[in-house]
Amino acid sequence: MASYSLSGIVERLGGTVIGDAGTVISQVATLERAAPGTISFLANERYLGQLKSTRAAAVILGESFSAVVDLPRIIAGNPYAYFARVSALLNPQPALAAGRHPSAVIDRSAKVAASACIGPGAVIEGGAQIGENVLVGAGCYIGRDAVIGERSRLYAHVTVYHGCIIGPDALIHAGVVIGADGFGIAMEQGQDGGHWLKVPQIGAVRIGRDVEIGANTTIDRGAIEDTVIGDGVKLDNQIQIAHNVEIGAHTAIAACVGIAGSSKVGAYCRIGGASGIAGHLSITDHVEISAHTLVTKSITEPGAYTGAYPFGPNREWRRNAAGLRRLGDLNDRVRALEKSLAEALAVKTKGK
Amino acid sequence: MASYSLSGIVERLGGTVIGDAGTVISQVATLERAAPGTISFLANERYLGQLKSTRAAAVILGESFSAVVDLPRIIAGNPYAYFARVSALLNPQPALAAGRHPSAVIDRSAKVAASACIGPGAVIEGGAQIGENVLVGAGCYIGRDAVIGERSRLYAHVTVYHGCIIGPDALIHAGVVIGADGFGIAMEQGQDGGHWLKVPQIGAVRIGRDVEIGANTTIDRGAIEDTVIGDGVKLDNQIQIAHNVEIGAHTAIAACVGIAGSSKVGAYCRIGGASGIAGHLSITDHVEISAHTLVTKSITEPGAYTGAYPFGPNREWRRNAAGLRRLGDLNDRVRALEKSLAEALAVKTKGK
Amino acid sequence: MASYSLSGIVERLGGTVIGDAGTVISQVATLERAAPGTISFLANERYLGQLKSTRAAAVILGESFSAVVDLPRIIAGNPYAYFARVSALLNPQPALAAGRHPSAVIDRSAKVAASACIGPGAVIEGGAQIGENVLVGAGCYIGRDAVIGERSRLYAHVTVYHGCIIGPDALIHAGVVIGADGFGIAMEQGQDGGHWLKVPQIGAVRIGRDVEIGANTTIDRGAIEDTVIGDGVKLDNQIQIAHNVEIGAHTAIAACVGIAGSSKVGAYCRIGGASGIAGHLSITDHVEISAHTLVTKSITEPGAYTGAYPFGPNREWRRNAAGLRRLGDLNDRVRALEKSLAEALAVKTKGK
Repeated sequence: MASYSLSGIVERLGGTVIGDAGTVISQVATLERAAPGTISFLANERYLGQLKSTRAAAVILGESFSAVVDLPRIIAGNPYAYFARVSALLNPQPALAAGRHPSAVIDRSAKVAASACIGPGAVIEGGAQIGENVLVGAGCYIGRDAVIGERSRLYAHVTVYHGCIIGPDALIHAGVVIGADGFGIAMEQGQDGGHWLKVPQIGAVRIGRDVEIGANTTIDRGAIEDTVIGDGVKLDNQIQIAHNVEIGAHTAIAACVGIAGSSKVGAYCRIGGASGIAGHLSITDHVEISAHTLVTKSITEPGAYTGAYPFGPNREWRRNAAGLRRLGDLNDRVRALEKSLAEALAVKTKGK
Repeated sequence: MASYSLSGIVERLGGTVIGDAGTVISQVATLERAAPGTISFLANERYLGQLKSTRAAAVILGESFSAVVDLPRIIAGNPYAYFARVSALLNPQPALAAGRHPSAVIDRSAKVAASACIGPGAVIEGGAQIGENVLVGAGCYIGRDAVIGERSRLYAHVTVYHGCIIGPDALIHAGVVIGADGFGIAMEQGQDGGHWLKVPQIGAVRIGRDVEIGANTTIDRGAIEDTVIGDGVKLDNQIQIAHNVEIGAHTAIAACVGIAGSSKVGAYCRIGGASGIAGHLSITDHVEISAHTLVTKSITEPGAYTGAYPFGPNREWRRNAAGLRRLGDLNDRVRALEKSLAEALAVKTKGK
Repeated sequence: MASYSLSGIVERLGGTVIGDAGTVISQVATLERAAPGTISFLANERYLGQLKSTRAAAVILGESFSAVVDLPRIIAGNPYAYFARVSALLNPQPALAAGRHPSAVIDRSAKVAASACIGPGAVIEGGAQIGENVLVGAGCYIGRDAVIGERSRLYAHVTVYHGCIIGPDALIHAGVVIGADGFGIAMEQGQDGGHWLKVPQIGAVRIGRDVEIGANTTIDRGAIEDTVIGDGVKLDNQIQIAHNVEIGAHTAIAACVGIAGSSKVGAYCRIGGASGIAGHLSITDHVEISAHTLVTKSITEPGAYTGAYPFGPNREWRRNAAGLRRLGDLNDRVRALEKSLAEALAVKTKGK
């Protein structure tokens, strides 16, 4: 395992050391459970107590906390981002073993870079292009004419349908499905009472550079044009992105979110877990959506938006939910009260 | 790529041409981004502006819009369904290459039609039956005694557990799991504080004809009897259908919906994204459920049902959600006001 | 197929027979659709009508119902748990065929018990340990140094990332992904407007004994320390468990639930379908969460908690949801009314 002195770390990553710059670090840790030889960080005031009792060999702090402990420490403008860089330094990705596993099934017309690693049982169809230093994990399926950009890593059991394009430096986790058909159906009435006709989904999926996609997430191909995921987008697990959605650059989406067809999400948005965006909407840049919120109208102003039901003990919920079912009536009753009272007061005034 | 004149299209699909019937069409397009040689459609008045400026070579219109443009056009009763048929004409499914990939693992007692295409790494267990012109995609797993009806296409990594039956003309996308155990557990108290006993799930899944199932959707096998999906049902991605659910014919379900055990959904229902249906309920035919709605009671009347929290800017939500937590109290206060005012007015009347 | 007399059953499982103890049973059934030779059960008074008309050869009943039918019957303290045991007796899991399929790819440094069954196309990486009588299903991927405890069964296409540990007697359904990276990202501002840095996820997943995991469920590896699933936990399909979550023993979680990072759920909790738990919360033991509820605060008291929007016909919802958007205002109006009325009454009193 790699190890670095604090001075070695700041040489590589910037920041300044306070205390013994020769302190050697071999792993990252949480403040609470740090072992000797580890470095931790404080990004949230809430954990100040843990900072004071940590057994870490060193910590990463923002300037405003530089004096709260005596431990060897690195002062950085953004301690959490700095911590991410230190952890990447101490935990480098294992090098790829270039080559094709003999059990992989690769069409002759596919172009596979010599530096790529094609895992056991992977299937690569005709016309597909696999870039330099790509990992195609065990059992992945890469469809006809699909393109995987250089240095991208696909873990086990990823499916990329025909014609889909994944940019460089992607990280795609197990079970992801890219480019399955969008949900395009047209009801055709008939003597049978009607049935659904399939609308062929002839677009594809285009994914920018430096995108991470979590396990079992699905991104559907476009109906006519493409579904588009911008550069630097980060998608958590079990997200569903429908046909012709466009996600702007550097937007981060938490797990279990569903985005319906043809909606456009701006750049630098943050979408909370299990929230949803209805179809054909447009969300501007820098919008934050809370967890479990259903967005039903376009959003033109940056800011935070919420629509989750406030939870509580079941007996309180029963009472309030019953009130909610009669809220229109309650409103009418208040209006009637206002009118009655105003009339009564008017009569009284007149009476004076 | 196939191409057809407008007259060639109406010969095959019906409808009537206005304008140059010899106009040749080689692909479908959206109104907004149509290239020369394409045909587009108008199904929603909202896009009339795009219709007037489209570069499409021809368009498909309903009768009421037949005169709004000079473009060559096909007039059809249901322009969207007509468009679906035109797209299918121009984008036929690639023909299956019959045969078994040498890396497929097929039990000797499985019956696989000679016209079927069994992809690389697919596994077909003993007693399974694979019909004529079926595609079993790369890495699919077909369990013991499962049946796949003729012309059905299973894309990569589909899992069909033992004994499940899929009708003809199914389209099943990557990562779908059919026939995993339902969530049947019984709490057994004991000196250990209690533990869950598994209830064996001995039913299967039966799927009708012409069913589409989206990527990573799961349909559990029945506890005792079968889980049943009717003819013509269309399921989007990441849907969860629990044991012993029954879905009526031609019902369409959007992504991320969960339907709990033993519930019955009628025919021709439309279930919005990420909505849920609690267990042991019955939903009649022609019911429409909005996105993010939890159905907690049976529905006996056709119509539209909704239960999503209306979203808004976070600061407004805070104020209204706080009110919601006190809604029972507010109701009591209004009742008290009504009583006080009535008493005050009564006193005044008496006093007159 | 196995068959037992009622006396044979109670010998093995306890309970007492009333009626003909020689009645032979070969399968379980529902009360409603029981065929001759089957045994059914009553666990819910609601089905008393079905009990009286059932064609089952015998039934399992609680003591309070022991006299309501004349059928041969077994009286048991917990009829549903007893039924689970009878079904397991009549439907034993098929025996494993020990051995490695020739198409499996097993690293030389992996330790695979001779009694284990390794399915076609399975991949087992270096240093992994596969215990006695384990099933590694078709196409499973077991990462470097992962451990699968004895008697655990992994169905098709399960992915276990490197270093994850699964206890004995697990049942893991198709498409499950254990140990993918948690969603750890840090925003780093820059001249490019900012981008996300990946925080390496160096923890793993540890799963206790006797855990069941439903199809396509995902459990992420820890960011620094491990994600932990306790003994006897039961997870339904399509659940998302984020990094560093801890689930207490014997907790049962229904389908489509999402639990955000670092939250701790106690023992013997029951979490309803599609509900969510926000990050960094703590839920005590014996908590029941209703379906579609978002838990946004820690819960320190056992009990039932709810937060779903009450659904209804769309036109009623429109009216009530509109009221909800003005609920803060309504509260202000009621306060104003209370004040006005109090003043009016005070004036009147004074006036007297």
